[in-house]
Amino acid sequence: MPRRMPAPFSMRGPDVMNDNKPMSSDNAVSSIAHAVETLKARFAERVVTSEALRKQHANTMTWHLPQLPDAVVFAQSTAEVQEIVKLCAAHRVPLIPFGTGTSLEGQINAPRGGISLDVSQMNEIVAVHPGDLSCTVQAGVTRKQLNDYLRDQGLFFPIDPGADATLGGMAATRASGTNAVRYGTMRENVLALTAVMPDGRVIRTAGRARKSAAGYDLTRLLVGSEGTLGVITEVTLRLHGIPEAIAAAVCPFDALQGACDTAIAAIQIGIPIARIELVDELQIKACNIYSKLTLAETPHLFVEFHGSQSAVDEQVAMFEQIARDNGGRDFQWSTKPEERTKLWQARHDAAFSCMVLKPGANVLPTDVCVPISRLAECVMETKEDLAARGLFGPIVGHVGDGNFHVAVLFDRNDADEVKRVKAFSEALAKRAIAMDGTCTGEHGVGQGKMAYLPAEFGDALDFMRAVKRAIDPDNIMNPDKIFTL
Amino acid sequence: MPRRMPAPFSMRGPDVMNDNKPMSSDNAVSSIAHAVETLKARFAERVVTSEALRKQHANTMTWHLPQLPDAVVFAQSTAEVQEIVKLCAAHRVPLIPFGTGTSLEGQINAPRGGISLDVSQMNEIVAVHPGDLSCTVQAGVTRKQLNDYLRDQGLFFPIDPGADATLGGMAATRASGTNAVRYGTMRENVLALTAVMPDGRVIRTAGRARKSAAGYDLTRLLVGSEGTLGVITEVTLRLHGIPEAIAAAVCPFDALQGACDTAIAAIQIGIPIARIELVDELQIKACNIYSKLTLAETPHLFVEFHGSQSAVDEQVAMFEQIARDNGGRDFQWSTKPEERTKLWQARHDAAFSCMVLKPGANVLPTDVCVPISRLAECVMETKEDLAARGLFGPIVGHVGDGNFHVAVLFDRNDADEVKRVKAFSEALAKRAIAMDGTCTGEHGVGQGKMAYLPAEFGDALDFMRAVKRAIDPDNIMNPDKIFTL
Repeated sequence: MPRRMPAPFSMRGPDVMNDNKPMSSDNAVSSIAHAVETLKARFAERVVTSEALRKQHANTMTWHLPQLPDAVVFAQSTAEVQEIVKLCAAHRVPLIPFGTGTSLEGQINAPRGGISLDVSQMNEIVAVHPGDLSCTVQAGVTRKQLNDYLRDQGLFFPIDPGADATLGGMAATRASGTNAVRYGTMRENVLALTAVMPDGRVIRTAGRARKSAAGYDLTRLLVGSEGTLGVITEVTLRLHGIPEAIAAAVCPFDALQGACDTAIAAIQIGIPIARIELVDELQIKACNIYSKLTLAETPHLFVEFHGSQSAVDEQVAMFEQIARDNGGRDFQWSTKPEERTKLWQARHDAAFSCMVLKPGANVLPTDVCVPISRLAECVMETKEDLAARGLFGPIVGHVGDGNFHVAVLFDRNDADEVKRVKAFSEALAKRAIAMDGTCTGEHGVGQGKMAYLPAEFGDALDFMRAVKRAIDPDNIMNPDKIFTL
Repeated sequence: MPRRMPAPFSMRGPDVMNDNKPMSSDNAVSSIAHAVETLKARFAERVVTSEALRKQHANTMTWHLPQLPDAVVFAQSTAEVQEIVKLCAAHRVPLIPFGTGTSLEGQINAPRGGISLDVSQMNEIVAVHPGDLSCTVQAGVTRKQLNDYLRDQGLFFPIDPGADATLGGMAATRASGTNAVRYGTMRENVLALTAVMPDGRVIRTAGRARKSAAGYDLTRLLVGSEGTLGVITEVTLRLHGIPEAIAAAVCPFDALQGACDTAIAAIQIGIPIARIELVDELQIKACNIYSKLTLAETPHLFVEFHGSQSAVDEQVAMFEQIARDNGGRDFQWSTKPEERTKLWQARHDAAFSCMVLKPGANVLPTDVCVPISRLAECVMETKEDLAARGLFGPIVGHVGDGNFHVAVLFDRNDADEVKRVKAFSEALAKRAIAMDGTCTGEHGVGQGKMAYLPAEFGDALDFMRAVKRAIDPDNIMNPDKIFTL
């Protein structure tokens, strides 16, 4: 069975938020049926058509309604993925790569039906090269599995989106999360990929050298392509040494503005902070309830510093000064692993804990990212706009990157509220784009952010489409994600 | 007049190293002639057809023979570039973007004739955003010009390929150089680009946020595309704070192996070294003559550390210990800017100074890059192979990245030597690729490395071609570079 997170709230209800209707024609249906039969003949019990499993494989987190694939097939090797892709190509059947299903923007939905290709059984750590600070893993290895494996060697893979996602899925969605401010995102930490392309050919995008000037950067073309250009089957990653010293703290602030200004100043002054997370007063309230904490219900920064002991001490001293100048107080420091874990667990539980604020609600998670100098302005305007529209939701953010999420809590059955949520989301995306930012810092486009790309990219979007058409002329790879053709 | 480096040695002689013959048909010639006339009518004296200037614009460094464009046009704005691209597109005339002409692999040659589009007059620093540690410059701004401009603000742009190249050219070739081990290459330091695409449309590839998960990564598709997908007209770059403390040193070693092993260990242990350059005994000899130094004629590492004073002190102590364990001795430390400049000038002059070892010789500069754990092995095998083939040339390397250059000195008129040089170059590329490395760490493919890409990429090369065809269907943008269609 695939590893995946439980859906934190119901996905059922009328399709008011999701305009992607199944688009399968009769011909397509018969092709798909034929492909499923052929797959069954080849892969036997690893092809599943039960509604329960198909639902689970379209059980997108947050507000997107599930659009079920016609079958799920569990692949166990690149060669098997190649067989499956060739079959789908021959029948022009849509194919949707699936890791743990923790993507947030409907990336795993099957709006045209087709095959969900589950890579979770491809969970072998192929090679670790400690001397090169790199490793190669199959696409279904999860980040926690990898870090458990690496720990004894003093190495770790820093990208941490919260969920225990597969590394293939993290590459496909250009994931980042709490450590990105220091270590970068999947964009910076994927050295090379093996992928099965839409015509069934297997390619390796690069070697393992730290840098290369050879040809077009296919690695970074596939990172963030959300399964629309090929199926990632192996990922070669940069690793990092586990730091000698780690110090983590929570710091309450009098006001949201001061917390934002502290993050901005810390980045601008060049403190190599490992994590710096904003958690607003509403989210602190939710964390207190959900994770049984007793934090003051004011805006907080959660921070972490990595390095040698003296480097960490130096960073901590600089940061404390900045925080104090901006209304920060009562630092709670922790250098013990178990204390740190508890602290960060509360932060990671934010996605689930926010539900305690409005039980039974639906959630729309926003994901804008702006240049750091515009962060405070963007957060404050967004908070005001949320209130002005009579909406409600906590704010958390990877503020060192200028990235923050509003988890808007709403009732899917309240048509007026739904309308206001949509308008808020669109206004926020446009606000971030107007500040030279992006509608999505780390969740990806999927189905949920497609509407904002014309504003963000203009004509550049046509060149993305041209690349898609060139590589996947029959549009079988995760169709109708990022853009329609 | 465009800024450019003088060519350090003669490009004249029979075309024995360069198999790229002009491919213009009669039709193409008449299209080009018509395009040149139209350009002259529009841009007057900024269109130059003199042989001297055309030669200068094809005056590629190293061993490539010049292939002259039919005309050079100096653009002064993105809008002018757009006009020129539209004209070339209408007439299907090849267009070759030109910055300072310091690329090493024939990137600026015009094998099918056409228009050299010189962007050196587009040298405006459009905006500096100190709070975001970013800036936007026109493509013709050089790295020294930018750093002179930034110095008063305490900021710098770290990528340093040696030559004072334009930032547009550095983006186009995915340049790196001495600081890449700490700060990354152009791949990591370009946030966004403005480019004129082959159909004349102007696109902006991204906003200024530090990260984004929105759509395909067109920024990194254009970085390293060597002018084959569009003309870069503006570049948005990440900047860094000038470090509080900088310490630089030269350290002689008893043997090449020890110098390599020191570099490997320093990277593996995670010292955030800013530069670590290998210079072999032959290159030291050349530097001593050319730069009037008195260094011991043994292999050296040139190193530099950036950070707070205490961080630098800590790094220096760790590094000295590693070096001593590997036969390093007699560190010469310098913290004064003028001393450091002199030291690095000697390293940067390597490309020119190697000529003193064999006056009048031609130079073939190799550029392989391998995983750091294979570095010593690759360097030692290469040195042996060079000697075994009766060839001669110094070795320098950005060894923290696993990247090194052999500057093979040879006589173009000696057919047997030319044959051996070609065989050496091919064997070296294949050695690096077999070690999971690349034939080019930073110089790019241009014309010189095209032959090695099938071995390095296999079928992946076809997907690069597919992207090229999709974006530039008439193949007007710098044709016959990276690959032929």
